[in-house]
Amino acid sequence: MQQPFARERLIRFSHCDPAGIVYFVNFFDMVAGVVEDWFRDAIGLPFDEMHLKRRIGFPIVNTNCEFFRPSHLGDMLRLQLAIARLGRSSIEFEVRGLVRGEEKFLARHKVALVSLDSWRPLPIPEDMRAKMREYVL
Amino acid sequence: MQQPFARERLIRFSHCDPAGIVYFVNFFDMVAGVVEDWFRDAIGLPFDEMHLKRRIGFPIVNTNCEFFRPSHLGDMLRLQLAIARLGRSSIEFEVRGLVRGEEKFLARHKVALVSLDSWRPLPIPEDMRAKMREYVL
Amino acid sequence: MQQPFARERLIRFSHCDPAGIVYFVNFFDMVAGVVEDWFRDAIGLPFDEMHLKRRIGFPIVNTNCEFFRPSHLGDMLRLQLAIARLGRSSIEFEVRGLVRGEEKFLARHKVALVSLDSWRPLPIPEDMRAKMREYVL
Amino acid sequence: MQQPFARERLIRFSHCDPAGIVYFVNFFDMVAGVVEDWFRDAIGLPFDEMHLKRRIGFPIVNTNCEFFRPSHLGDMLRLQLAIARLGRSSIEFEVRGLVRGEEKFLARHKVALVSLDSWRPLPIPEDMRAKMREYVL
Repeated sequence: MQQPFARERLIRFSHCDPAGIVYFVNFFDMVAGVVEDWFRDAIGLPFDEMHLKRRIGFPIVNTNCEFFRPSHLGDMLRLQLAIARLGRSSIEFEVRGLVRGEEKFLARHKVALVSLDSWRPLPIPEDMRAKMREYVL
Repeated sequence: MQQPFARERLIRFSHCDPAGIVYFVNFFDMVAGVVEDWFRDAIGLPFDEMHLKRRIGFPIVNTNCEFFRPSHLGDMLRLQLAIARLGRSSIEFEVRGLVRGEEKFLARHKVALVSLDSWRPLPIPEDMRAKMREYVL
Repeated sequence: MQQPFARERLIRFSHCDPAGIVYFVNFFDMVAGVVEDWFRDAIGLPFDEMHLKRRIGFPIVNTNCEFFRPSHLGDMLRLQLAIARLGRSSIEFEVRGLVRGEEKFLARHKVALVSLDSWRPLPIPEDMRAKMREYVL
Repeated sequence: MQQPFARERLIRFSHCDPAGIVYFVNFFDMVAGVVEDWFRDAIGLPFDEMHLKRRIGFPIVNTNCEFFRPSHLGDMLRLQLAIARLGRSSIEFEVRGLVRGEEKFLARHKVALVSLDSWRPLPIPEDMRAKMREYVL
């Protein structure tokens, strides 16, 4: 594997709850966001092209997240994405959230390729798969 | 166990994504919402009283969700909550989402009681625990 | 005018920000939600039918909101909807948010009927308009 | 005035609604976000320092937004912030949203400085005001 794919997100006021820490639901939105960034920047498949032109999508099969420590307003969160398992139609991502090297959460996020017209699973095309392999752990 | 604790949520326009189905992140918000309803209505501990007066909270330890079928705009989603495991400080909820009896998702959502001042775990007080036992599977 | 159209919303943990009050953006979501409820329950046009079957929509032209006092976790917010001005294609709603009779915000929210295929404005059909007139201030 | 303060935001899947365009509520979140960026980067007052250390805040007095054209998945939205009016305690921002030079929305967003302990208005301190003046239209 190369370096993991990484993006940074500033923890904003709108992410935080009355306890002054990130409301956990916003971490799932960030996990989905870094997956979206990876499809665009690493695989070359922006979501508008994927959904609207190619009429395919990667709906979520399951998501699991462990929360180790709270994140706070003003933290710069580093999201690191890798692939834990690359199946025929499915991709199981591992996404870590870190602040100054301290692990805040670890998510497993499994998606599977479907046709948006039939909602039937499709095998991941070989040209996409070749690019994805570089991110397998 | 009694009947499971249940609440209904209408799937709104704002819950849905460009594929016309519920954006998965909103299901996590609904899971947290039914847990909040259960603390208020079944345990007698509204979140404002819990957080502001008693200075305790139940931060999330981990969450897992399997998504079986998409939910659509206008669906009336039934959320059913039960307790899969009641620990000394922790509660592991099982929350099902159903539309007209069809299971849409199944979440496991574990929280643990802490002091909001020290962020240290606290044992669940016996009076709370007695009410919680009725929801253990 | 009849009684105004009204719906209640519990202020939840997820609506609140680190200052412990409702993050203002969530009020706009509630304004849109009560408009959605009104189309379904008062006009007989649920959004799924409107968007998917009839291929029409009411995109937002402008929104204005004055915030008078903060709302807190646990408040039961009453949303009151009336029509300030009913145009040929447009509807200007007035939505008030009240907690125990105290006004928290006042929104003006203007939408206009369009075809979702052409995005061109359409006149509001007379059968819809007849039902809408009952809510004009 | 200098150049207006500007930030870019990619329109993501999670911002968009079943009509495939940005759900309007997300524009308000982006307006609040660019105001937050401006306080941090232009005024030197990050929100964590403002709220937690200095115990002051800028709650929203009113917001108005006109929506000219829909924004789509994949658009790079440019947010331009300037000050329309700088009062004793209040700031009225003007925030424009543009995609490839085309104006998508224009918001007026008024906030006022308060003590977070008393919720009473405070005059904007002269050192802050001096930096703010550079952004007055």
